[in-house]
Order: sequence, then structure tokens, then C-alpha cells
Amino acid sequence: MIAVDAMGGDQAPHAIVQGAIAAARHGIPILLIGQQEAITPHLPSDWHTLPIKLEFCTDAILMEEDPSRAIRTKPNSSIVKGMRAVAQGTATAFFSAGNSGAVLVASIFIIGRLPGVFRPAIGTFLPSRTSSFFCLDIGANVDCKAQYLYQFAIMGHAYLQIAKGIVHPRIGLLSNGHEPYKGSIEVKKAYDYLKQSDLNFIGNVESRELGEDIVDVVVCDGFVGNVMLKTMQGIARTMFHWMKDEAKSSWIQRCFLWLNQGLFKAIKHRMDYTAIGGALLLGVNHPVIVAHGSSDARAIENGIKFAYRIVQEEQVKKFNILLKSFLDDNHTLANVIKQKVRSLLHWRQR
Amino acid sequence: MIAVDAMGGDQAPHAIVQGAIAAARHGIPILLIGQQEAITPHLPSDWHTLPIKLEFCTDAILMEEDPSRAIRTKPNSSIVKGMRAVAQGTATAFFSAGNSGAVLVASIFIIGRLPGVFRPAIGTFLPSRTSSFFCLDIGANVDCKAQYLYQFAIMGHAYLQIAKGIVHPRIGLLSNGHEPYKGSIEVKKAYDYLKQSDLNFIGNVESRELGEDIVDVVVCDGFVGNVMLKTMQGIARTMFHWMKDEAKSSWIQRCFLWLNQGLFKAIKHRMDYTAIGGALLLGVNHPVIVAHGSSDARAIENGIKFAYRIVQEEQVKKFNILLKSFLDDNHTLANVIKQKVRSLLHWRQR
Repeated sequence: MIAVDAMGGDQAPHAIVQGAIAAARHGIPILLIGQQEAITPHLPSDWHTLPIKLEFCTDAILMEEDPSRAIRTKPNSSIVKGMRAVAQGTATAFFSAGNSGAVLVASIFIIGRLPGVFRPAIGTFLPSRTSSFFCLDIGANVDCKAQYLYQFAIMGHAYLQIAKGIVHPRIGLLSNGHEPYKGSIEVKKAYDYLKQSDLNFIGNVESRELGEDIVDVVVCDGFVGNVMLKTMQGIARTMFHWMKDEAKSSWIQRCFLWLNQGLFKAIKHRMDYTAIGGALLLGVNHPVIVAHGSSDARAIENGIKFAYRIVQEEQVKKFNILLKSFLDDNHTLANVIKQKVRSLLHWRQR
Repeated sequence: MIAVDAMGGDQAPHAIVQGAIAAARHGIPILLIGQQEAITPHLPSDWHTLPIKLEFCTDAILMEEDPSRAIRTKPNSSIVKGMRAVAQGTATAFFSAGNSGAVLVASIFIIGRLPGVFRPAIGTFLPSRTSSFFCLDIGANVDCKAQYLYQFAIMGHAYLQIAKGIVHPRIGLLSNGHEPYKGSIEVKKAYDYLKQSDLNFIGNVESRELGEDIVDVVVCDGFVGNVMLKTMQGIARTMFHWMKDEAKSSWIQRCFLWLNQGLFKAIKHRMDYTAIGGALLLGVNHPVIVAHGSSDARAIENGIKFAYRIVQEEQVKKFNILLKSFLDDNHTLANVIKQKVRSLLHWRQR
């Protein structure tokens, strides 16, 4: 059963309820959590025949609320109740398009971090020329220390083994240049850690070249990852606008453009975040799936399907076991590296 | 006279020399600085008839060199010699597609920062749906404190008054969400400063919406700006690749695509960084123009033309005078704000 937060997202609750109903029609069991007066008007008359269970709450956490405070002061909100359902085993996964900061905080406090994990991270697959790459973090942690970035790399490594069966995924560190001296202070430190690790680290990567299938995992802090993700969405939209604007000038051009409709649809589909609909929070005890705030009903449906696939394939369970073994090994490794780097710096200063 | 670094860039020296020659054919006076044996083979036989002067150096700073060390240990490099020429008045502006870190360091030490400027920033216009926005910093400063970001906003404000005649440019702070609590620690602090300033601050902006002409100036640190810029370039390239790949499957589709050639060219032109060819370093005493490392001869030609226009319009001279007046006012303002915020935090903690 997937616990779905009906109150979160720019188009909540109607888009969420519609998306959840559509997913339930495909046989996915859903625990829909929301305020009674908000969700019942959007339910179809035949909802009783679907694998949907309702749970009512009295509060909702708004998008603009401060995450920590909201979780503390609203124990009867859909996010807190949904997380509790997962923690207690009533549901297997939690899905929300709401305040992602609040989802993160609630995950940590209610579902719990995996032992040894500094910071859970949100990861998602982004499209490249012929395939895709897994990017983390895309928004959970804005200020990241080098050891967090290093651990994101380990998480990406483990997740790609589970999700795609790639034994030695190529890991790149997002920076403003290839050279090891490029990057912020923490990125440079993370470079040193990764360079000395057992991971298949290919070095710094620039966001310009990510489309060229050179890498399987891209590591960055949540601020930078979020900007990159949203730039991709923005520039694709702008380019389609430009095409329409350019074609406006002549009807022949409009006809030509119309002939290519199928092609544009295919391209749009590749760029379309609603096609996956969700990103996975890695580093917590149970599956938590975060959807885009602006998700429509279709995106929500696809997001719930994505969550269901994660549950069916037991991805998070397998990932957590694998990560634990890596952290037992690599965690110490990270400490060794840190000491190495420190002694090196100390030696340099002398 | 524009001092051109013939040794910097992935395609140096031949692309630089070719670009400089092309610009000189348009009547732009150029001081071309490079190693004799590297540049003379690429000069055309009629170069004596063009407004080009050569200056030879014995060293070149490579792309992968550490900036500060390179400037210190290679006083006879093209970058250092070019900067000296500008500082001494032999040339009016410096242009380089080389190691941008080294250009920044040399600018600060040889040309000099404007009084009151914490950190010079690289700014450039990026395309939006019907116009463009000015983004700074795109790569000069990777770790930025809030007061640097705040000053970038003041610099953007002043530059748009000079370059576009916009009296109250709309200023946005790039973040991972609109809410004031979104962003890294420094971004959040910068939000507070900007909110209380006299600037036309519209709040946090997300990179997804920058294409929609909602803002004139976007402020971010150099790491994030660089990632955003390169993501734009990358995703545009990937989308064109996808179109070609999709069309490969059928010859009809290929024909359709061919019919839209003109349209695609127009779109490519809008995204094309080689069309401008350069970004401006703001906050130093004389014009310094930085070009993309991968610039070809056409990009170099356009970059030198851009530098020439900056010089002709006396943009940097006017900007420096205007910025000085702003800093005299606003610098104190920033301090006032800082104290306000501090006392507020202090009050909250009590």
C-alpha cells in the first residue's frame, strides 16, 4: 500500500486525488491521506470499488511553511500521518508532491535515517543523449560538506547496482571545470576523497557534457542539483516557445512545424518530468518518493506507479542492505582519507 | 587598442589568431600577445596592412594550472603582459579565452579592483523568451558570502542602467525555491540584505522560470552560475541531437526536419554563445573580457567585437563611476542591514 499525501502540491488536492484514482484503477493499493472536506468532493462515485483507503487528517503543511516548525507544530498533517503509517507498517511507501523540506524532516524524525548516513539525498534519473544519468542530491540538502558529497557518491554507486545492475557505475563530481583545483572548498575536498576511494570516479564533470553519456552518477549539493534540474526544464520550454514564436511569422513555416509534430512530441516526452513523476529519497529506512510541486494528475499517477515499482522490486530494501555493507567498509575509508588529507595539509603548511 | 591573449583557450593559438585577424579586418586595433613561434605561422601574408601590433612573450599559462601560482611564477606570460599593457595604458581592454581564474587573479593584482568592491564578478547576458537577462557571477567566485552576492546585485543594477538604460532593473536571487527560507545559508542572508535595500528586488527566482522575461538581473555565486550556463548549452545540444536521432528512423521525417532548417538555425543562433563571444569582468578598473575556453575563431572574432563595443561606448568607465556612487551609499547601507539582522537574530535567541 502506497501512502499518498493528498494535500501537498500546487494543484492539490484535486490533481492528487485524480492521479491517485487513476493509479488505483491500475490496481495499485493506495492509502489516501487528506482533509475530509478537501478530498471527498473530488472522489468519483465508484471509488469504493477501487483499492483505495481514506485516512482523514485535520491539518495540511503549506508549500511556503518552514519545514522543521511545520512538522513540530502540525502532528495531525497529511505528511506526518503518512510517514507514521509507513513507520508503523500500515503502508510500504510514502508519496508526496508537497513541501519537500517538510517531507525530508519528517522522514528523518519519523521513518529514520539509516545508521551511518549523514544526510539522506533525493536522487533522480535525468535524460542524456541515448540513456540517462542518476543525479543526487537534487534538493534535500542545500549546504553540503565534502563528506556528505562523498557519501552521495557511495549512495549513487549502490543505487545504480540495484536499479540498473551496473557493477561499476561511472561517478562524476559536478564542478565548474575538469581540473581538480576547480570547485567550491567542499567540492575540492570531495574530489580528494573520491580520488582515493575504490569507486569508479571519473573526476569533475561539467553540466554541459552530461548529455553525452559520459557518466552514470552525478554528485552535487542539493542547491546546485536543483538549479541544474530546473534549468533543464526551463530551457527546453523556452526553446519550444522560440520555435512557435519563429513560426508565427509565416504560415509556410507553421505548416513545416506541424509536419514535425510527432518529432517534437517525442522530444518533449524525453524532457518530460511528468513521465517519471517522482524522485527517490535515499538514506532512510523506507521508500519515500518526492514529486514535483507543480505536478498535474498525470504526473501524480506516474509518480505513484514509480513508487509502486520501487516497492515491487524491493529496491529500497535491497539498497539499504547494500549501502550498509558499503558504509561499514567505506565509512572507515572516508575517515582514513580525511586523516590523510589533513596530514598532507599540515605537512604543506610546515 | 584591445590586448588579445593569443595563448589562451582550447583552440589556441590558431583560433585566436584567426579571430583576431578577422576582427582587425573590421578595423579594430589589436595588440596580439603570444609566443613568437606559436603565433607567426598562423598570420596571413597581408597582416602588416591590418591594425595589428604583435607583442611576444616567452611563457603561456595553461588551462589546468593553478591560477595564483601561475600568475606568480610566470611574469612573462601572455596574460600578465596583456594586463600590464592595459594597466599602463598601451591597450584599453584585455581579452582572453584562457584560464579564467588566472585572468581574474591577474586583473585584481595588475589592473586593480575598484575601491569598495569585495570581489569582481563575471557577468553575461543569457537568452530568455523575448529578451535576455544579465547573470552574475558566472564563474569568477565559487564560494560567495552573502555580502558578495548583495554587491553583485548592486553591480548588476548599475550595469543594466549603463548597458540597457533600464532605470530600475528587476533583480532576482537564484535559489531552489521562491520562499525566503529556501537557499543555502549565504543565499538566505543575501535575501535579507536585498529585501531591505533600495534595489528593485523581486525575491528568489528559480532557474526554470528565467526564460519567461520575469527578471533583468540574476544574482548567484560563480559555481551555480557556471553550472546554469553550461546546463543551458548542454541541454540545447542534447535536444538537437535527439531531433537528429529521432529523424534517422525514417527518410520522410528527415525531409520534414530539413524543411525546418531555417527555424533550427534561428533557435541555434539564439542559444549560441559564440554569437556574443565574451563576458565582462565587473568591479575592476579597466575592461576585461573573458571568452569561453572552447571558443573557435568566429567566437573569438565576436568576442573582440564585443570588447570593442564596450570600449567605444565607454561602458566600463561609466559603470565604474556609477558603481562608486552606489557603493558610497549602499556600502554603508549593507552594514546597517547587517547590524539590523544581527540584532534581530540576537533578539530572537533571547
